Amino acid sequence: MKTLIKNGMILTTENEFKSDILIVDEKIAAIGKNLSEEGVDKIIDAEGKYVFPGGIDQHVHYSFVYQGSKVRGFETSNAPALGGTTTVIEFVNQVQGKGLLESIDEFKTKDVDGIAMVDYGFHIVMTDPRPEVIEEIPKLAEAGYPTLKLFMAYKGQFFHADDDAIIQALTKGKEAGITVMVHAENGDIVDFLTKKLIAEGKTGTYYHAVSRPPVCEAEATRRAIYLAEMADAPIYIVHVTCKEALDEIRAAYQRGQSVYGETCAHYLLFDESVLDQPNFEGAKYICSPALRTKDHQEPLWEALNKGWLNAVSSDHCGFDFAVQKHMGFGEGKSFADVPNGAPSVQNRVNAVWTYGVCEGKLSRQEFVNVIAASPARVNGLTEKGHIAVGYDADIVVFDPDYRGVMGVANSLEGVDYSIYEGMEQKGRPETVLLRGQVIVENAEYVGKKGQGKLAKGKPFGSAYDKFKKA
Amino acid sequence: MKTLIKNGMILTTENEFKSDILIVDEKIAAIGKNLSEEGVDKIIDAEGKYVFPGGIDQHVHYSFVYQGSKVRGFETSNAPALGGTTTVIEFVNQVQGKGLLESIDEFKTKDVDGIAMVDYGFHIVMTDPRPEVIEEIPKLAEAGYPTLKLFMAYKGQFFHADDDAIIQALTKGKEAGITVMVHAENGDIVDFLTKKLIAEGKTGTYYHAVSRPPVCEAEATRRAIYLAEMADAPIYIVHVTCKEALDEIRAAYQRGQSVYGETCAHYLLFDESVLDQPNFEGAKYICSPALRTKDHQEPLWEALNKGWLNAVSSDHCGFDFAVQKHMGFGEGKSFADVPNGAPSVQNRVNAVWTYGVCEGKLSRQEFVNVIAASPARVNGLTEKGHIAVGYDADIVVFDPDYRGVMGVANSLEGVDYSIYEGMEQKGRPETVLLRGQVIVENAEYVGKKGQGKLAKGKPFGSAYDKFKKA
Amino acid sequence: MKTLIKNGMILTTENEFKSDILIVDEKIAAIGKNLSEEGVDKIIDAEGKYVFPGGIDQHVHYSFVYQGSKVRGFETSNAPALGGTTTVIEFVNQVQGKGLLESIDEFKTKDVDGIAMVDYGFHIVMTDPRPEVIEEIPKLAEAGYPTLKLFMAYKGQFFHADDDAIIQALTKGKEAGITVMVHAENGDIVDFLTKKLIAEGKTGTYYHAVSRPPVCEAEATRRAIYLAEMADAPIYIVHVTCKEALDEIRAAYQRGQSVYGETCAHYLLFDESVLDQPNFEGAKYICSPALRTKDHQEPLWEALNKGWLNAVSSDHCGFDFAVQKHMGFGEGKSFADVPNGAPSVQNRVNAVWTYGVCEGKLSRQEFVNVIAASPARVNGLTEKGHIAVGYDADIVVFDPDYRGVMGVANSLEGVDYSIYEGMEQKGRPETVLLRGQVIVENAEYVGKKGQGKLAKGKPFGSAYDKFKKA
Amino acid sequence: MKTLIKNGMILTTENEFKSDILIVDEKIAAIGKNLSEEGVDKIIDAEGKYVFPGGIDQHVHYSFVYQGSKVRGFETSNAPALGGTTTVIEFVNQVQGKGLLESIDEFKTKDVDGIAMVDYGFHIVMTDPRPEVIEEIPKLAEAGYPTLKLFMAYKGQFFHADDDAIIQALTKGKEAGITVMVHAENGDIVDFLTKKLIAEGKTGTYYHAVSRPPVCEAEATRRAIYLAEMADAPIYIVHVTCKEALDEIRAAYQRGQSVYGETCAHYLLFDESVLDQPNFEGAKYICSPALRTKDHQEPLWEALNKGWLNAVSSDHCGFDFAVQKHMGFGEGKSFADVPNGAPSVQNRVNAVWTYGVCEGKLSRQEFVNVIAASPARVNGLTEKGHIAVGYDADIVVFDPDYRGVMGVANSLEGVDYSIYEGMEQKGRPETVLLRGQVIVENAEYVGKKGQGKLAKGKPFGSAYDKFKKA
Repeated sequence: MKTLIKNGMILTTENEFKSDILIVDEKIAAIGKNLSEEGVDKIIDAEGKYVFPGGIDQHVHYSFVYQGSKVRGFETSNAPALGGTTTVIEFVNQVQGKGLLESIDEFKTKDVDGIAMVDYGFHIVMTDPRPEVIEEIPKLAEAGYPTLKLFMAYKGQFFHADDDAIIQALTKGKEAGITVMVHAENGDIVDFLTKKLIAEGKTGTYYHAVSRPPVCEAEATRRAIYLAEMADAPIYIVHVTCKEALDEIRAAYQRGQSVYGETCAHYLLFDESVLDQPNFEGAKYICSPALRTKDHQEPLWEALNKGWLNAVSSDHCGFDFAVQKHMGFGEGKSFADVPNGAPSVQNRVNAVWTYGVCEGKLSRQEFVNVIAASPARVNGLTEKGHIAVGYDADIVVFDPDYRGVMGVANSLEGVDYSIYEGMEQKGRPETVLLRGQVIVENAEYVGKKGQGKLAKGKPFGSAYDKFKKA
Repeated sequence: MKTLIKNGMILTTENEFKSDILIVDEKIAAIGKNLSEEGVDKIIDAEGKYVFPGGIDQHVHYSFVYQGSKVRGFETSNAPALGGTTTVIEFVNQVQGKGLLESIDEFKTKDVDGIAMVDYGFHIVMTDPRPEVIEEIPKLAEAGYPTLKLFMAYKGQFFHADDDAIIQALTKGKEAGITVMVHAENGDIVDFLTKKLIAEGKTGTYYHAVSRPPVCEAEATRRAIYLAEMADAPIYIVHVTCKEALDEIRAAYQRGQSVYGETCAHYLLFDESVLDQPNFEGAKYICSPALRTKDHQEPLWEALNKGWLNAVSSDHCGFDFAVQKHMGFGEGKSFADVPNGAPSVQNRVNAVWTYGVCEGKLSRQEFVNVIAASPARVNGLTEKGHIAVGYDADIVVFDPDYRGVMGVANSLEGVDYSIYEGMEQKGRPETVLLRGQVIVENAEYVGKKGQGKLAKGKPFGSAYDKFKKA
Repeated sequence: MKTLIKNGMILTTENEFKSDILIVDEKIAAIGKNLSEEGVDKIIDAEGKYVFPGGIDQHVHYSFVYQGSKVRGFETSNAPALGGTTTVIEFVNQVQGKGLLESIDEFKTKDVDGIAMVDYGFHIVMTDPRPEVIEEIPKLAEAGYPTLKLFMAYKGQFFHADDDAIIQALTKGKEAGITVMVHAENGDIVDFLTKKLIAEGKTGTYYHAVSRPPVCEAEATRRAIYLAEMADAPIYIVHVTCKEALDEIRAAYQRGQSVYGETCAHYLLFDESVLDQPNFEGAKYICSPALRTKDHQEPLWEALNKGWLNAVSSDHCGFDFAVQKHMGFGEGKSFADVPNGAPSVQNRVNAVWTYGVCEGKLSRQEFVNVIAASPARVNGLTEKGHIAVGYDADIVVFDPDYRGVMGVANSLEGVDYSIYEGMEQKGRPETVLLRGQVIVENAEYVGKKGQGKLAKGKPFGSAYDKFKKA
Repeated sequence: MKTLIKNGMILTTENEFKSDILIVDEKIAAIGKNLSEEGVDKIIDAEGKYVFPGGIDQHVHYSFVYQGSKVRGFETSNAPALGGTTTVIEFVNQVQGKGLLESIDEFKTKDVDGIAMVDYGFHIVMTDPRPEVIEEIPKLAEAGYPTLKLFMAYKGQFFHADDDAIIQALTKGKEAGITVMVHAENGDIVDFLTKKLIAEGKTGTYYHAVSRPPVCEAEATRRAIYLAEMADAPIYIVHVTCKEALDEIRAAYQRGQSVYGETCAHYLLFDESVLDQPNFEGAKYICSPALRTKDHQEPLWEALNKGWLNAVSSDHCGFDFAVQKHMGFGEGKSFADVPNGAPSVQNRVNAVWTYGVCEGKLSRQEFVNVIAASPARVNGLTEKGHIAVGYDADIVVFDPDYRGVMGVANSLEGVDYSIYEGMEQKGRPETVLLRGQVIVENAEYVGKKGQGKLAKGKPFGSAYDKFKKA
């Protein structure tokens, strides 16, 4: 099967140039001017369009369960496809008492195989750091899951990790090139403030932000960096939101430590004022870490530019508003009862383009880096994330001239609200290819369930680069 | 009762000048040239001598119990007197299940009253942060104990404090001007490394230092600073030992946070090589944090000069070598079984003079500050720590020309070894007065048991200075 | 002659206590409670008053000549006396072609001897760095003038110094303990911006500030620090005004370089908005460096607190408004034609008390330090700046309860305007003694012309402290 | 004309992949697997070879004249070709009294046209900043020369620039997107130290390094950064050599200023000890800034990795040893009489590969960036520096398995010595194409004189990137 994309303006992390792309089966076979149409099965006209690698969203939650209620799962993974994301990496909680790979396998078999509509990988969340679990860590690498996550926040929950667990993960993980990721918030601070606020009757959705201030993120970030220094291992900070945490990451970078991090689209676009809406609307924006004040946004964009942060993820959580978010509504309830997280996987690429590239915050090259190339490198997806010969033909043909509005009406996320509701959208993925197969055409999802495959990561991803040098 | 000290060179934190001092009863009544001898009961000739305020050692352990074995107590408190220290502040562990003041009172009644030979105060160590204990914190201020300490290290011990306890102490303490002090080491790091070293058969005394590297102190220091920032309260870091922790303290100072700290004489004088002596001799130097490499010493002196650290304490622990230190000796034992701490209260002032002033590390003014004036300010001892009219007549007449050797032979500490054994001593306290009474004469202790009194501290000590400004 | 000041609250840099002071001839003889009145010639009742050392203003211009027009000279030096300043240090420009000491001597003989009403010293401004002048530098130390100043600003003026002159001064000065001071502004930047503004028709007084922005001060400050590093010598930055320059000074302090600096009262109290007044009123506030925006003031207060800056001077220049300031008024004139400087010597101490101490910016101890003790140390005035036995009896008895208004009506500065006109004054010097002689009584000047004497400084002032240590 | 490079491992700044490259005339037409050989004129087998963009050396001196003696010129520009560099950018001094473009044109006509064997551009060195010259600056952009250089060093020479000239260049240059470059050394410091050393009889070649210590480079670098801040313009620091200057550049980067810089291969490979060789051999290594101690090398490599520096240039100066370097030899001569600079254009790429890539200091991607891609971006060479469709076919086919020795024997530089003499070389350019034409084959130069063309740069090169964003 041969497909030819003609005359698109190809975007790479380095430059942009007008060219054709020839796809043979699942791979990019050639890039060039006026490539021959001989033997080509399908021609896609990309004149006037940008052509960039399919997005990689390294932070999604399709398996999250809150108080027994599960978020929307991979049956809604046509949403990222429509939004220009062709690979997602899911966080899977280790089931207490079970092994790491066992936990992944169970989830994969039950909830992913035959369902996923984009390619996928997994980050295991280690929740039960028994000695035999620590010993299992290197096996993740062989299985194609070269990352491991720990939650510093959520004191008292089964998935909370203490410093010892982090040290063990870093130390054992390094042997096999596993990149340890942490959710960095100080659980004790959150717990203290939450109790204090509730005792003071401050239970409304806005107080979610007050209960987890920047200092609680900065402290945990700094601590994680110290633990990584002690273990002489890289560390990756997920969903960085504030200047204070950035200062710690940047300082580590400057000292020569290998500290990487991502932010999420909503931290770039929204501020905490949206938590303060009437009619419980603020609950839609309850996520952790919390949204910040506006002055944190420019530093986040700058950090993406400078490489202190290297990806924009979604932290997608398909909670609905009517039932799940309302668990925190009513008598005796508070912001602390609202499940944390929001649906956001579909609009990640569009949001970064519209509010990043079009607003002059990111160049088109940096855009490609933060939505695809850099997550590919971090997660060892060595055949994804670039428009280059030999890479997977995960490709977005993007129409920059489209103008529309984001919201539930256009969403495949399967949820009753969108945090982007009513916001302007500039440009959209017109055609999306997943390993050479067209899954979006004319901005409609045309793929089929189960088309997504496991994208195995190689260990020693880019957070290990410095360790590979002399 | 009137005493006249004649012709001494008086040292203050600001300057030095030759003058007489007139003492009436317990107080300094006048400082001047050629003060009248009329009605004077006793004349002390200080010609050729330096005259400075009696030392204040804010960090001693006379009540410490390890594995049921108690260190030497206040019955040896003539040792500080002989060494030029006229006030000590003792750390008292809250007894589990009892109150803060109750714990102090018990100890005071049983082990201090009628015994102490120098003035004394207490820092309570909160070990049991129940809600009613938190509520009791402000009462410390009224009782004259305006400080409270928490141990971040020693994971698994009853006196270990988690972040929540620190936040509670800071928040409640601030209401009443209580200065919170922390022993800053990350317990998880120490625990991980200790187990690892023992598993590797690295059990000798030197590995004590390896088990608690600078990074474990720096992390906890940074965390304490973040918690204090969150609580908008001052914090005091006891026994700072290394550049990495200093960097955090200095940065906080620079940002305008109120972060104070002390170091101890042994961190200024010894390096970790002494832990590596044969015949279990290294055990004599096992203390926490551990001794560091030599390159940490200059930064500590500099920090004292610049005010990033503001006191030199002893962290005195009267463990003996024959019995108590040997708890970590022999088959199946390791450095982790050796009690942490060393006798050091007698030589604190002499050590700082000999190796600080005489070596050009500190001016005489800075010397007065770090051994007396600054601890007085921090602990709210508003009538101690200075040679000035109206202050307690706690005075050292110091002979700078004396030359001798430090060691057990000259020690009143009641212990079978000295970490200073065989080291040169330049100068010595010739006469020491405690509230106007001569307790050392011709460098011999001449006071009597029980002469020491409680020196009540006022709350809102100098760590609160910035909070008193607009 | 014996004078007794009774029952005052004595302020030192360290503490405060109620006591009497006995003065015998020119010196403080005793400090004590209930000192004997026997043989005392004069008793001053200081009950309810603060008693602190006479102020030292290390930055005054009584010899300044602009376009042939001279500022008010030492015939108005009763103004500082009335304001609580008992010593001034005057900047004397080296006369082109003459020697350093020769230039001082000429000025002293002609304009100071028999005229000065407070004690005085001199800083020479090296304007003509010929080899023989460089060789003369060490002789300043012997003559009692242990400082030397250079102007980095004022490109094209005879007193402008290039980097070479600064290096020579630092290198040769260090041999004899001369402290080099610089006026740190980049002359090229000022020149470029001045020409640009005038070319654009922006000639009003406000543009003075625009023509010398913080960056021009910060650059020169950093350069001076680099030159001092190269010469391994201390450096002193006069009239520091802005955060950017402070950042450089603080960073140098932190790195361990000996960099000292002062600010002036007007930078603490006024912002650039006063330059933008109608009727040429802005010209009254034209001084160099220029006044800054309000956000620079808190950092200056903080720097005084932390010791990054160590004095508040006046930079007094007795230009009048009617004639001298108006040299920049009218057709073809601009801000660049207005003489730089303002009368301010009388109210320095009162301004720092009212707007520093009373507003909670400085403690009373820090107040004593920045208006007297620290300038004494910097300039080697080892018998001034403290209330201590053996020191010069330069003493202010200060009534904290006085309330009044500052302005020309109360001024002895001999000028037709005051930058403090109409501002509230809290407290005032009620009695002032100069070396034991009362020169202000009931807040009236009662001394006589020529009573001031040369206060010789010792070399190796406090900026050399670090070089005295090992 | 069609050329096909088959089966090479293509290196880009982002990744590497095995592929063919089709060249049509001067441009890269396609990159792909198994590209058709139909109609292809020439096939180059690159199996087992790396294929990367032709090097761009943005810092060469073919026009330098010292004491009337000229270095080797473009008649030796087959040397860079043989070394894998296909574009050089020459510094042309403005002739006093002439215009900027006039000076370039004269040199170009006389010494470049019909001679150059690689493509070339020019940086003008502004030596005569008259108002009309300042006005001419924007015309550089139109002419394809979007850079301008100033010398902060060399006090007293005609090409020395004061701060005013830099400010003018920055301000006027920004209007048209001209990137201002500076040679950052403080001329006064060099002058002072040179005179001092010579006066002390320290005239040997080693003292060259002592006469221009890191502090003189750091000061000028900081000053240049301040001037750029003042002008709100980017600045580019040529030949950065030391940690101290790097600290300033990195801090500026961190603050968000647009400060770029390069280093040169010799600062990465040699230390100042080579200046201390007998028989005047040290003179071969006299260049400015001077070589540094070994501890500066790792920070330079790190800075290239992190993007604080973004290119490795040669600073090639074809002085010979026998005549030109010996101008500083003999009675009454000193290091100060030796012309500054060394031949180094041929081995730049090989040196960075051998001692950077092979030693694990740089990845192959970073290698491509610093020797080609980044200089292309900085200098607006939008069709050079990458292996990508539509770009100039300046291509190196590099044999990584070659082993040899660098030195005069293999050099086309036309000089009697090489600073790399006897050093091991790993790998070499086997085939080099200049805009599609083979100029090196089997590691022999096979091109012809005059084949090089002017490579016009576009203004607003990458140092302006931040200014293009919102």
